[in-house]
Amino acid sequence: MISVEEALAKILGSIKVLDAAETPLLQCLGQVLAEDIYAAIDVPPKDNASMDGYTVKAKDISGANASSPVYLDIIGEAKAGDVSNLEIKTHKTVRIMTGAPLPKGADAVVPFEDTDETQRTERPAKQIGIMKAIKKGQYVRFSGDDVAKGQLTLAKGTVLRPAEIGVLASLGMEKAKVIRRPVVAILSTGDELVEPGKPLAEGRIYSSNSYSIAAQVLRCGGILRLLGIAKDTVSDLEAKIKEALTADLLLTIGGVSMGDYDLVKDVLAAHGEISFWKVRMKPGKPLAFGMIKGVPHLGLPGNPVGAMITFEVFARPAILKMMGKTRLAKPTVEVIMEDSARNTDGRRVFARAVVRKENGRYYARTTSLQSPHTQISMSQANALVIVPEDIDAVKAGDTVKAIMLDWNEE
Amino acid sequence: MISVEEALAKILGSIKVLDAAETPLLQCLGQVLAEDIYAAIDVPPKDNASMDGYTVKAKDISGANASSPVYLDIIGEAKAGDVSNLEIKTHKTVRIMTGAPLPKGADAVVPFEDTDETQRTERPAKQIGIMKAIKKGQYVRFSGDDVAKGQLTLAKGTVLRPAEIGVLASLGMEKAKVIRRPVVAILSTGDELVEPGKPLAEGRIYSSNSYSIAAQVLRCGGILRLLGIAKDTVSDLEAKIKEALTADLLLTIGGVSMGDYDLVKDVLAAHGEISFWKVRMKPGKPLAFGMIKGVPHLGLPGNPVGAMITFEVFARPAILKMMGKTRLAKPTVEVIMEDSARNTDGRRVFARAVVRKENGRYYARTTSLQSPHTQISMSQANALVIVPEDIDAVKAGDTVKAIMLDWNEE
Repeated sequence: MISVEEALAKILGSIKVLDAAETPLLQCLGQVLAEDIYAAIDVPPKDNASMDGYTVKAKDISGANASSPVYLDIIGEAKAGDVSNLEIKTHKTVRIMTGAPLPKGADAVVPFEDTDETQRTERPAKQIGIMKAIKKGQYVRFSGDDVAKGQLTLAKGTVLRPAEIGVLASLGMEKAKVIRRPVVAILSTGDELVEPGKPLAEGRIYSSNSYSIAAQVLRCGGILRLLGIAKDTVSDLEAKIKEALTADLLLTIGGVSMGDYDLVKDVLAAHGEISFWKVRMKPGKPLAFGMIKGVPHLGLPGNPVGAMITFEVFARPAILKMMGKTRLAKPTVEVIMEDSARNTDGRRVFARAVVRKENGRYYARTTSLQSPHTQISMSQANALVIVPEDIDAVKAGDTVKAIMLDWNEE
Repeated sequence: MISVEEALAKILGSIKVLDAAETPLLQCLGQVLAEDIYAAIDVPPKDNASMDGYTVKAKDISGANASSPVYLDIIGEAKAGDVSNLEIKTHKTVRIMTGAPLPKGADAVVPFEDTDETQRTERPAKQIGIMKAIKKGQYVRFSGDDVAKGQLTLAKGTVLRPAEIGVLASLGMEKAKVIRRPVVAILSTGDELVEPGKPLAEGRIYSSNSYSIAAQVLRCGGILRLLGIAKDTVSDLEAKIKEALTADLLLTIGGVSMGDYDLVKDVLAAHGEISFWKVRMKPGKPLAFGMIKGVPHLGLPGNPVGAMITFEVFARPAILKMMGKTRLAKPTVEVIMEDSARNTDGRRVFARAVVRKENGRYYARTTSLQSPHTQISMSQANALVIVPEDIDAVKAGDTVKAIMLDWNEE
């Protein structure tokens, strides 16, 4: 048996970051920048007012206060989006709106509340009384304050979140070059499987793993190619696998253990280089990995919990790496156990658990069902408590690591 | 000024959970079940083998061990998906594959490794030696073990994650009734705004808020309706707002402060019931909320940081509530400050910060830029450190709450 780390290192060693494509800005959310972004413009492009008020030369009003206002001549108005040819000379002012470019000669903005405009019944036409001295630069957003033209604004490799999408838009970009999302083909195998929505013949079960795995693929940003169910025949398997050869990753579910009808491993071995591993983890021991005509293939175990957990541990990091991401692990927290979890045979146990937070600490209780065969047991958990290989059991009160399957993010 | 809690309570008090629709299973990811799901079938439907091996009556092999195997007559084979008419009578066995239904009369499965099959050069045709006694029920997945027919499997209100999608598929469901996602209309206002990708005339700036807010909407599950930029005229505003009346939520950006050209508030007030609030928070003080012909409207401030933070604090919970979710707050962690953050005027400060984890504890450092006007400052942060209203400052070493903007989940 190989360790989780060995298996993951081998898989990631065969996974390449995908190519990049110019992509409309909003579609870039969650993707990785494929190039350094240098600002093509200053942001903001011009010095402008950050408050509504009167723009002035600060030195003109250095003696202003509420009891002895300084009166300035109003020579015009400036609103956002306007280009003004006005120029502020000594003791002149322009009434200005937030975002409007500062007229030539102005170096500060006095907000309305520090003028006598608010005391008047009509808007002043000729003169305004300034009732407070302000410093040069006050309430001015200077050109290039946010981003200076030519500046490295976002580096290659940055994951584009809403804030970064906004930054790119502020530079005038409607597209960005990002690493594309992988197309992930999913193939279930087994004569016993029936697609949901179809009648269930006797002796059959519904194909549920392909749905949970497909949802996991969507969640980490992959594009689905659902290949359906392959029958336990060489010809059907070969036909389905052919459809996967233009995908970036093939995930098969089941068919890689010891059964006579577990043909997947034979077919895959005939068409590519496949390793069959026993990984020192529970659930999820049997795992296949290889390359079929250049397409990485990960063969997940057929039991529902093993499939989902090996997806989290191996397939998700592979998909994230393809997308150019570097933080490949799910977040973990230190939890205080409220019950015990055993490790019977020296494998790393990923025990389904419910983690809750109380007074700033995390507490974990394992779910009652721990069989790898029950799809429903994963739905009772929000975390996987880890019992390390070299520890027989974790007990109530022990502090251990838990992988969070979900934050309350969706 | 009203508190964050008062503002949020008023907003959520006006927001209704949307109606439900039958939705294809994979599209349900992240949505909320609108009905209790009772299992239409047993899962698994039949008792079946959980290992490849020989299925037996356990009592027949109670004396078996490696030195004196118990020999059983092989009467046939059972593979997954097969319906077998075989019946196990005393001292008979059927060779069985994982997932295959148990023949009548069988009550346990002996894995290959506990038989003498693995010691032979050819597969046994007539008899198999069982080398280990096992208990009744061993390596059998019993009908209904996972979910029993008629059982409440997933309750109304459950958020459908990959595990729940798998559970619904295991019941044979190809669709589920979930609360639909809200259509969120976004309208930027201001004559100074230019769409990214277009030439930037003098005095103008690129419309970036609409992109960051749109990305935030996508992230929390809304469906976008981008209304573009409204000019600072009543007629243009009215035309754009008309387009929002079939949406579930209207978000406007800017136009709600004191400037003469901040017409949004006048137009909205003329068409609906709008409250203009000053909320005791920083950034994000000016906020509008109301109903326009039945459509909730949230007017976010025009500065990039205030817009994004008020989105997180008010718009995101509103969208999640529409989707039927009940956990509306972003996850918070307790962080140890590495620098200080001030509160100058009794408002709750949401300070942009970088939170990192070390030895199981979280540490926060505020970003150098804290101006609400710089789009880029949000891209430097992964969290918002909260300085409460009644505290002047938090200092290095203090433990405070931080709202996590991101886990490393995307």
